[in-house]
Amino acid sequence: HNITNYVVMNYTANALLACGASPVMAHAAEEVEEMVSLAGALVLNIGTLSPLWVEAMLRAGRKANALRVPIVLDPVGSGATRLRTESAKRLTRELAIQVVRGNASEVLSLATQEARTKGVDSVHTVEEAEEAAIALAKELNTTLAITGKVDLITDGKRIRKVHNGHALMGMVTGTGCTATVMIGAFLAVDPDAVEATATALAYFGLAGENAAAQTKTPGTFQIALLDALFLINEKDLKDGAKIDAVR
Amino acid sequence: HNITNYVVMNYTANALLACGASPVMAHAAEEVEEMVSLAGALVLNIGTLSPLWVEAMLRAGRKANALRVPIVLDPVGSGATRLRTESAKRLTRELAIQVVRGNASEVLSLATQEARTKGVDSVHTVEEAEEAAIALAKELNTTLAITGKVDLITDGKRIRKVHNGHALMGMVTGTGCTATVMIGAFLAVDPDAVEATATALAYFGLAGENAAAQTKTPGTFQIALLDALFLINEKDLKDGAKIDAVR
Amino acid sequence: HNITNYVVMNYTANALLACGASPVMAHAAEEVEEMVSLAGALVLNIGTLSPLWVEAMLRAGRKANALRVPIVLDPVGSGATRLRTESAKRLTRELAIQVVRGNASEVLSLATQEARTKGVDSVHTVEEAEEAAIALAKELNTTLAITGKVDLITDGKRIRKVHNGHALMGMVTGTGCTATVMIGAFLAVDPDAVEATATALAYFGLAGENAAAQTKTPGTFQIALLDALFLINEKDLKDGAKIDAVR
Repeated sequence: HNITNYVVMNYTANALLACGASPVMAHAAEEVEEMVSLAGALVLNIGTLSPLWVEAMLRAGRKANALRVPIVLDPVGSGATRLRTESAKRLTRELAIQVVRGNASEVLSLATQEARTKGVDSVHTVEEAEEAAIALAKELNTTLAITGKVDLITDGKRIRKVHNGHALMGMVTGTGCTATVMIGAFLAVDPDAVEATATALAYFGLAGENAAAQTKTPGTFQIALLDALFLINEKDLKDGAKIDAVR
Repeated sequence: HNITNYVVMNYTANALLACGASPVMAHAAEEVEEMVSLAGALVLNIGTLSPLWVEAMLRAGRKANALRVPIVLDPVGSGATRLRTESAKRLTRELAIQVVRGNASEVLSLATQEARTKGVDSVHTVEEAEEAAIALAKELNTTLAITGKVDLITDGKRIRKVHNGHALMGMVTGTGCTATVMIGAFLAVDPDAVEATATALAYFGLAGENAAAQTKTPGTFQIALLDALFLINEKDLKDGAKIDAVR
Repeated sequence: HNITNYVVMNYTANALLACGASPVMAHAAEEVEEMVSLAGALVLNIGTLSPLWVEAMLRAGRKANALRVPIVLDPVGSGATRLRTESAKRLTRELAIQVVRGNASEVLSLATQEARTKGVDSVHTVEEAEEAAIALAKELNTTLAITGKVDLITDGKRIRKVHNGHALMGMVTGTGCTATVMIGAFLAVDPDAVEATATALAYFGLAGENAAAQTKTPGTFQIALLDALFLINEKDLKDGAKIDAVR
């Protein structure tokens, strides 16, 4: 069950179908509780948020928490505007969220003012980002996935790094959002948030690599990526996943 | 004129262009009456409904009825949540709708409580679904199209079965919604709802078959399906349509 | 920063990425002022407008004007319904807009009643449209781009005609809207509205020509167009642009 942004609704729905999941998009406050009751996971994405949609996310999220349906949050653009930062923080504060996925600045923008003054705002190196992420995962009591050239996943104790992926993925709108829905699909069948997230990101990154082997231009790549998600089987994933269990 | 869900707006617009129609999407209550006055058909789709959008659908629908512009309804997810079931029923009750298209559970969810107690809820076989559809078409005074492996079309008297289509169509989001807009396009030029619907579904199914002859993966299939809609001419359709006039 | 219609959000975002720009979509009144402060240009598109979205457009536009961020307006469907015509006129009246792009009827619908009575409503030939456009550009104090088989660009003094493009572009939904966002991307780096618009339209038209050299069907063309935008370099554009500096 996705409450997500207008830009990626079609693409993420197709990606979910390609990987064998059953997507539904529903945002009306009047129905989100019923809809999430039928779902294996809930994806919240604030990419084209408005206050009414955030209310619906909270309503769906509370029901998901009550039913123990896992939630993954994509805080798109958090840190860029107050509405985004405050909405993302409110979602992490009022809901028990299993996984938050974003780029480094989006994820680290979720830190409290206290954490910020302690140094989150002065992250300059990959190592500093890693330490900040570990501290934030503990503070928020969730699993964080910071995606980039290498993906970092941590619940504050364990750390996984995923080395799959391809630069062309950054040339297609919504690939970050698609990584997030992949995590949702894997969370629906694997209760271990760190492992589910690492596997989902390895799978999605591997699909990017396979698609890039077919084409080097973004239009055809976007389509080849859906095909690659569809074609990867369990053995391909086992052979191709580059997951580094750092800690 | 489409008042439809966010997920499929782009794809259905492209499908309509590919088949030679002229799509417009407009949902604001302030303009739907004017917009539908310019249209050959009105498509109502509740895939990402909210109460305000349903009000706009009713407003557009009443004007369409007054102007004798045909309406096709896609009750996406009716039966899954109260908001969807009640909105779909309200649309069928307050508007004269020429065609309703959905899968079996969506279409049969439109039955009244009375019909339900008479057996709609206990449909287990294709034959039972057929009898239920005939009864419901009479009750709603409309043409029903239940799409699936074989498509069933009935106005309560006549029955058509369409055997075109391909399993890959189920791997692309919005193919059901696209079948619905195809019906809208055919209704705009053919006042016989049963024949227009059967022809539209045969055409769309044939496009699916032709696309599947090009590719077996869902990303490229989604694109090949648009190409196929564009390429099929009148003779291809006549030769390829598998419409069974059962009754 | 795009405040645009639901149908084209994904496609225009991908087109902007393919040309090297960084698209963001954000429509909430609560954040548009902050978001536009981070942007190189603002695109306003009324394709699926509602009154709340128009208010957000005005709010973003006022801030853009204050910060001297250029604005391009796409008055989709202006002239077809009162809501569209009045909203488009209000945007041109209350904001300083650098470029308006649409087809002839959309752009000329922005004329005041006074201009209409003077003959805008009786435009029958290309020459008459040209004279009407020059007068309207002066009246609105903006650059107008009327796209079609040949694109006409004028600020009331200078006139450019762009002869690039391909008929298949009309078979893909949102190519007009994509032409508009291309203008936005070029305006972000070139303060001369007439030259930026002419170059953007030549570039987009050339991409259409290159895509049509690959395929003649609309599904694959839609994808090939994104690839072509990505592949064209500065020399290709210089060699392929057919810009006629009429005046």
